[in-house]
Parts: sequence; structure tokens; C-alpha cells
Amino acid sequence: MRGAYAIGVDVGGTRIAAGLVERKGRIVREARMLTPKAAGPFAIVDAIAGMIDELTNGVHPSEIAGVGIGIPAQVDFLRQSVEYSTNLPLGGVDVRGLVMSRLKYPVTIDNDGHTAALGESRFGAAKGIKDFVMVTLGTGVGGGVFIGGRIMRGSRGFGGEIGHVVVELDGPPCPCGGRGHLESYAARPAIIRDAREAAASYAGSSITRLAGGDLDAITAEIVIEGANAGDEASVEIMGHVGDVLGEALVGLVNILNPQAIVIGGGIGESCPLVSQRAAARVASEALAGRRDVKVLTAELGNDAGVAGAAALAFEDHDSREGMH
Amino acid sequence: MRGAYAIGVDVGGTRIAAGLVERKGRIVREARMLTPKAAGPFAIVDAIAGMIDELTNGVHPSEIAGVGIGIPAQVDFLRQSVEYSTNLPLGGVDVRGLVMSRLKYPVTIDNDGHTAALGESRFGAAKGIKDFVMVTLGTGVGGGVFIGGRIMRGSRGFGGEIGHVVVELDGPPCPCGGRGHLESYAARPAIIRDAREAAASYAGSSITRLAGGDLDAITAEIVIEGANAGDEASVEIMGHVGDVLGEALVGLVNILNPQAIVIGGGIGESCPLVSQRAAARVASEALAGRRDVKVLTAELGNDAGVAGAAALAFEDHDSREGMH
Repeated sequence: MRGAYAIGVDVGGTRIAAGLVERKGRIVREARMLTPKAAGPFAIVDAIAGMIDELTNGVHPSEIAGVGIGIPAQVDFLRQSVEYSTNLPLGGVDVRGLVMSRLKYPVTIDNDGHTAALGESRFGAAKGIKDFVMVTLGTGVGGGVFIGGRIMRGSRGFGGEIGHVVVELDGPPCPCGGRGHLESYAARPAIIRDAREAAASYAGSSITRLAGGDLDAITAEIVIEGANAGDEASVEIMGHVGDVLGEALVGLVNILNPQAIVIGGGIGESCPLVSQRAAARVASEALAGRRDVKVLTAELGNDAGVAGAAALAFEDHDSREGMH
Repeated sequence: MRGAYAIGVDVGGTRIAAGLVERKGRIVREARMLTPKAAGPFAIVDAIAGMIDELTNGVHPSEIAGVGIGIPAQVDFLRQSVEYSTNLPLGGVDVRGLVMSRLKYPVTIDNDGHTAALGESRFGAAKGIKDFVMVTLGTGVGGGVFIGGRIMRGSRGFGGEIGHVVVELDGPPCPCGGRGHLESYAARPAIIRDAREAAASYAGSSITRLAGGDLDAITAEIVIEGANAGDEASVEIMGHVGDVLGEALVGLVNILNPQAIVIGGGIGESCPLVSQRAAARVASEALAGRRDVKVLTAELGNDAGVAGAAALAFEDHDSREGMH
């Protein structure tokens, strides 16, 4: 069938995932590879084009509605250009044009927080919910804001950077250069920092034991596993992540009055304590009339980015074809 | 001319202002009175109806497009109901129905931050700007968010409560019951609190002198006048208001990616230092690509609420009549 599939590409700081996706969100073929970031922008573009070639092998071009690509970068959506990227060497690179020049499909690019939110909106936890905020906790804190069933992109497409709201004046430094941002409390590097501090301040800390006695071996995953198993020091660290996330969400709920909040990303999906503590803060501290906002866990996991990027391609295809 | 005028009503915690407004925003007749809040909700409704009667005296009913009322409350916009109000006894009161029952004009109600933002959008500093954030600093901190040329109301109409974003974990108490919200730093009560602390900690403080030696006589206006005249202690207090406002705006700019920020309200409009310091924070700390957001001062002053409420009535009238 014409336009029955789209290709969704989720470019991460570590890995690129891509899939051949049906209209209902089912990923029927997948490809994954490490992001060749040290090899430079053209290697990344080549990798993306190669994966798309592989995924579309044997599929008639007319069946492909297009390609959507989510990028961890600030994407000017109207100009379809990558403006800034802290994690990948793609700032100023015409990713869309370069991928299009190697393929016969139309390409649409967007920020990866937006594509993940689009995935959960169309196929996951936020299906049928018009006004929601998605927060992804991982290496960084990303997000997307849906208003009236559409991604809120802002004037240039840079909207939704939920990780960079200030929750503490003169708080800890954030990778973006600011201070006291949500990301400086609720992403992997912050968890590792807090765990090392906890271990260093008390030699008998369970954190040290969980890390096999080596402070340099502490990862966020070790702390999350500890928290999920009830380890006291780990519960304290991850509970604090949830509390701070909750404070940021109180502000977002007060400004945006959403129906739901979707918490995702590797940390958000693997540590229920974080959502629980954040939800408790929202329920007790948001302004009257909005404390019943639903706090949901993302459902698509790593597939949200691929499915959402494909949804973006379907939307673009259908609006070009006048299908809605 | 049919629908040439609208009535805009701005209900404040202290005063009600109303005007007969032309389509281009010119207020041709005005009425003002103290809000009879101690006399209860029906007295307030009676006062509003009386003012409208007075303003429309001699105008043919067909010339009146309708009545817009801005209320310092959480208004469920779709249901057109006042849900919560901390400053006035209007929570749960059917303000729209009661006013309509006394008059022959259609009535539309909204949160007063929204109507003020609508006023600046149609007739003031934000004319022609589709994506902007309005912040009003006064007795409280209010606001409105415009996205794509429309007020962002959120799922129930409660959106835009910019005063209630968290800027400091476990910060000072906020009238809403939360802690460390922007309003607990940047509204009149916070300025008075800071000024009293400054005066109490140093007997020779210029604040004490400005207040005529009586700490109980300190008002926000005294501190603002002091800051505008270069008084060091006052500059420190109002500069801090601007810095904290700036931190909150950094988060809003990162999430919403607006083209402009409009700073209004009694404090915002009378103390340029606040806007200057806030603008400096945004210019240095917002994420790349959005530091050029314009920081503007509201232009309509107290008229923004009346003109914006009238704009709301015009919009409703025109959509009913199929005029756009």
C-alpha cells in the first residue's frame, strides 16, 4: 500500500537505532549500531543512510511514506536545520539534505525529545491525551510538551528543553553552562556524583559495597538497582532525584496545566521510586485544580524514538498528500 | 456599527476597572471602583453589572460585541466557571451567569493574567509577536503564555501561572502553600520582607531612612523609588528580584522558546532595574540559539486588563458571527 511504512531513525549520543515502522507503530524491521561520532559528521550521515538502505531492501519505494530522524540537538524545525548539538558533531551540518542526497525518500528531522514524545503520544502511554509533558531521564534530561494534540515547538523549534529549568538558584553546575537546572540533579552524571559523595562521606556505605569497593565503578544503574532492592543509601539518592523532578514538574503543571506527565528515559523507566516521589510532590504542591494530573511511565522504552520519528514522517507525508 | 465596541472588565483584588473599548483597543469610557470584597460575591457581581450599565448608557445594544471579564482566579475556560480564587470570594461562583442574568450582552470570563497578556498582544508591547511570555509583577506574580498567536490555556484553562514555578528547593514560603516559587521572591510581600530584613540587620540602612524610620511603613513602592534613585540597599533588593526573575525566565525560554518576554505589572513597569537584570540573566544563561529573545516592558499599564478583556469579547463575538 502507498505510504504504508515510514523509516524512523533515533540518533543517540551512543547508538543509532532505526526501524521500518507500520502506520500503527509496529516496528517490523530494526537496525542498531554504535554512533561513529569520533569519525565526524559525514560518517554519521553515511551510517544513517546505510541503515535506511538496509531496512528498505525489497520494499517498493512507493510504500515508504518518508524518513523521520530524531537528533539530540537543537533543531530549527521550520528551516529543518541542526543548529546546536552538545553531544554530537552535527551543529551546523545539513543532516536532512545530506541524507536526502543519498536516498529517494523525503526526510524530516526534529529534536529527539520531540520524537520520543510523539512516539508516546501516538503509540504509547499518552495515546489519546492532548495536553501532556514528557520528561526523559537518561544521560541528560530531555522532553517534549504537547498542547492541543501537537508538539509545542516554540518560535524556532527549540521548545521542550525541560532539563534546563532552574530549580535551585546557584545550584550545582549543569553541562549546558547554567546552574541548578533539573538536569544537574536528575541525569546519570548527577546520580553518579551523588553516589560518590555518599560513598566518600561514609566508608561503610552500601554504595561502596554495591560498586564492588571501587568508587570509579559506580554507575547510575548500580544505584537504581540498589534503590529497587531497598538499599537505604540508594533509596535516598534516587528519592532525591524524584523529589527534585517533582519540584520542576510542579512548575510545569502550574504553567502548562497538562492532563498528564509521562516519565521516560532509561532512568525514568527503570526506577519506579523516581516517578512515585515526583508524583507525590505534584499531588501535594501544584496549585488547586490540577493536582489530579496523571503521572505515567513511558511505555515504548527505547522504541519511542524510532516509532515517534516514523510518526513524524507519516504526518509530513500525509500533509503533503492532503490526507488530513 | 454592529459590534463596534466591547466592554472590558478587570477585576482586581483591590479595584475593579472597566471600559468601553473600540476594536483598535482605544478605551473611550472608563469606570473604576474599589472591589467590595468584604461584602461578598453578589456585591462584586452587582458592582460589575452596575459599571457595565453605566458604560453602555446611550450606546445601542447592537453596537456592543460583548463583555469580557478578567478575574484573579483559576478559570475553567471551557466551562466558563471560576474554580478557585485566593484573593476574592469568587471560587465556585457563577460570575458569568450572574452577570449575564443582569444584562443583555454575552459574557466571557478568563484569568486576569490571560486578559492582560491578550491586551499586550493585540494593542501593546507584544503586537505582532506570536510566541511570547508575559509576566506581571505586583501583589502576586501572574502571567500568560502565547503560542502561535493564541493564549496557551492548558487542559482546563489554568495555564500560565508563571509565579508558581520553583526556583529554589525548600525556598521561602509562597502564599499558595508551596516553597521557593518565583512569587515568593518577586511580588510586593517579598520585597517588603527583604526590605525589613535589610533594615533590621543594619540600623543605619538607607531603607529605614526612606521609610521615615518606621519599618512598618516600608512599601514596595518605597524600595522601587529608592532603587530608581540609586539607593544602594534598594538597588540590592530590586536587583535580586530581577536576578531571580531572570532565572525563572531562563527555564521558560528553554521550555517555550518564545520570541519575546513582556514584563509588566506595577513593579515590572516602574522599576527598569528588574527587567535589565532579568534580561542579562536570560542573555547569558539560556540555551544556545535563544539568547536573543527580546525582553520588553509592557506598554498598556493598568489598561492592559481592560483592553485585553475587551479583546476576548471581540474574539468571541467574531467567532460566533463567523467573522473569522
